[in-house]
Amino acid sequence: MSRIITLTTDFGTLDGYVASMKGVILSIAADCQIADITHDVEPQNIRQAAILLAIAAPYFPPETIHVAVVDPGVGTDRAILAVQAGGQIYIAPDNGLLSVIFERNPEPVVHKIENRTLFLPKVSRTFHGRDIMAPVAAHLSQGIALEEVGPRFGSYTSGLFPHPNVVGGAIRGQIIYRDHFGNLFTNISRDDLQRLDLASLQVRAGYTKIERLSQSYSDVEKGELLCLLGSGGYLEIALREGSAADKLRFPLGTEVEITGAAQK
Amino acid sequence: MSRIITLTTDFGTLDGYVASMKGVILSIAADCQIADITHDVEPQNIRQAAILLAIAAPYFPPETIHVAVVDPGVGTDRAILAVQAGGQIYIAPDNGLLSVIFERNPEPVVHKIENRTLFLPKVSRTFHGRDIMAPVAAHLSQGIALEEVGPRFGSYTSGLFPHPNVVGGAIRGQIIYRDHFGNLFTNISRDDLQRLDLASLQVRAGYTKIERLSQSYSDVEKGELLCLLGSGGYLEIALREGSAADKLRFPLGTEVEITGAAQK
Amino acid sequence: MSRIITLTTDFGTLDGYVASMKGVILSIAADCQIADITHDVEPQNIRQAAILLAIAAPYFPPETIHVAVVDPGVGTDRAILAVQAGGQIYIAPDNGLLSVIFERNPEPVVHKIENRTLFLPKVSRTFHGRDIMAPVAAHLSQGIALEEVGPRFGSYTSGLFPHPNVVGGAIRGQIIYRDHFGNLFTNISRDDLQRLDLASLQVRAGYTKIERLSQSYSDVEKGELLCLLGSGGYLEIALREGSAADKLRFPLGTEVEITGAAQK
Repeated sequence: MSRIITLTTDFGTLDGYVASMKGVILSIAADCQIADITHDVEPQNIRQAAILLAIAAPYFPPETIHVAVVDPGVGTDRAILAVQAGGQIYIAPDNGLLSVIFERNPEPVVHKIENRTLFLPKVSRTFHGRDIMAPVAAHLSQGIALEEVGPRFGSYTSGLFPHPNVVGGAIRGQIIYRDHFGNLFTNISRDDLQRLDLASLQVRAGYTKIERLSQSYSDVEKGELLCLLGSGGYLEIALREGSAADKLRFPLGTEVEITGAAQK
Repeated sequence: MSRIITLTTDFGTLDGYVASMKGVILSIAADCQIADITHDVEPQNIRQAAILLAIAAPYFPPETIHVAVVDPGVGTDRAILAVQAGGQIYIAPDNGLLSVIFERNPEPVVHKIENRTLFLPKVSRTFHGRDIMAPVAAHLSQGIALEEVGPRFGSYTSGLFPHPNVVGGAIRGQIIYRDHFGNLFTNISRDDLQRLDLASLQVRAGYTKIERLSQSYSDVEKGELLCLLGSGGYLEIALREGSAADKLRFPLGTEVEITGAAQK
Repeated sequence: MSRIITLTTDFGTLDGYVASMKGVILSIAADCQIADITHDVEPQNIRQAAILLAIAAPYFPPETIHVAVVDPGVGTDRAILAVQAGGQIYIAPDNGLLSVIFERNPEPVVHKIENRTLFLPKVSRTFHGRDIMAPVAAHLSQGIALEEVGPRFGSYTSGLFPHPNVVGGAIRGQIIYRDHFGNLFTNISRDDLQRLDLASLQVRAGYTKIERLSQSYSDVEKGELLCLLGSGGYLEIALREGSAADKLRFPLGTEVEITGAAQK
């Protein structure tokens, strides 16, 4: 059975680093499908990669293998993980990159990659994406069992993101991501909002107030700010046909507070 | 029979939006080939997408399915179209994105996508590319008939681009596109020029005059402006080994006039 | 047998030029795998393409066909080459783009592409990547022999890059590439260093001195400069968790000198 391998990196698309990984994969698994998630993660921005991977991965078929390489610790003794979670496989350095995956899938099966027979014959000290993660992914796509990559591993890194606080009918979270359109994602999820069970709500971030939750961009006029549950499952601050990020200039980490009138 | 699906969006390559669409497609049509046309359309620039899609699409094999998502009206009641034209299939919101395709293929078969059994089970109000267009494309690639997506639809949006005027042996058109190299595309096509049947011609745009039509960049010196029929079939203003757009700084919409001496 | 075709261009990813090439390839070789190496080469920067292609290509399986289009001479009488070297096939204009490939594979089999029956029916004067190189690559992937593309060709362009000088125990090379992370690649290879057989070494570039060769980024503190043999096989100047290029602002061509104490 041939499986799909996705790639998420901070390598950019110029240098041929991504292509090297694809070459390694296709040398071992000639018939596998490779899909790019993105290579435009900011250099070494683990949080950014953690969020976008978690948003895109669930749309792939079961048993897809997701390889994520944002790896400032390459060359140190940080572990490299192979994880089964939510019916899919993830390969990434143990630096928090899989935080959101772990949060959404509370009982992941986590292995530490150690089986050198699955690596390239010569492993560099600076590019484990190509020399370790790509060939291990390719071997997994050819059907080897997850246990073959190395032993179970309990002390993996998680919890990269703060949870929003729910205090007396209000939620306090923060902005954790800015997308290509300038939509600002908060760490407040659909579940968090449903727990509050509000009849109406108000969103405040800095001096900006948004008086209700919209269903779609078209609920407001062109150029107006709105707040909605985005397609990734998070509460977003957006601007119809424009960039909320450019208008508001909130840095990541900016506090977002939701207050509301309780259901009667 | 497995077909090819191409993707054209304004999503950029950072966020995983494109990857979500690929995941949805591969979940339904595991063996289909996905080819990116581009994801670098300026946010919500329908005209830019319309031109580049029409230039690239004809080079794909018959029955290729082209999905194009530049969709400022997502969440409104704008239709989503599935179109058969020139032997290929196009899926796009009904906002003019297929204007050039309609112009080049005068009798398209246009359906409005309405069959919810082909959508993702849960359709968001903000991401129909992932929830409607990707799964419909995947089902079409697996062989369902075009009629199954929904009813014929007559009142689709077209005519996004002005036609050049031909007045007394002169053509007046405009600049409609700027490519990666800084070549400026006009809306004047090979056909328009052939209709004039000129022995010689002169191109004027702003205060810039170009005295003849070149066959190739090498007809002029390095750094010199030239005018040629570009590989996309439009009259282009170019600069050998440089960027005409950076030199001339013409905005899109700038008038371009062609005059000439008639054939004897 | 279906083979892999890679693409390396300076077309960017906006315009649909790359997609046109993919369409042409899939029209001839429906089952071939297309992998992008990069499309972000600076417009007409042949040297940049030459280096990154040579770094990525060896990781692909034998018989992979690499198509590289950085082609300022399109429309002139420069040749287009089809080359067998190191077990793989390369298709590129004869402008030095394959310099590094030729250097690493001293006895390449070089043909000049001339067989018009393999081209698109209509060949433009401005886009040979789409009209000649893509269809020839596709036909090669379907099993035609290299000889069928055209005659052997001896006078191809090579030697685009200077060799480092070894003078009295010192090596003088230069910076030839800057990668996405701001690592500065020199033209000094692992082999060059091994020939010197130094017990210790010192690297100097401009007023910057680095006192030893590191094995990995983690050998120095965050924010500190280091020098290592990069994953591409060249001596690199890097900055841990930052950009050496941004810090040092050395232009390409900057001299790099290595001196050292000989082995006893």
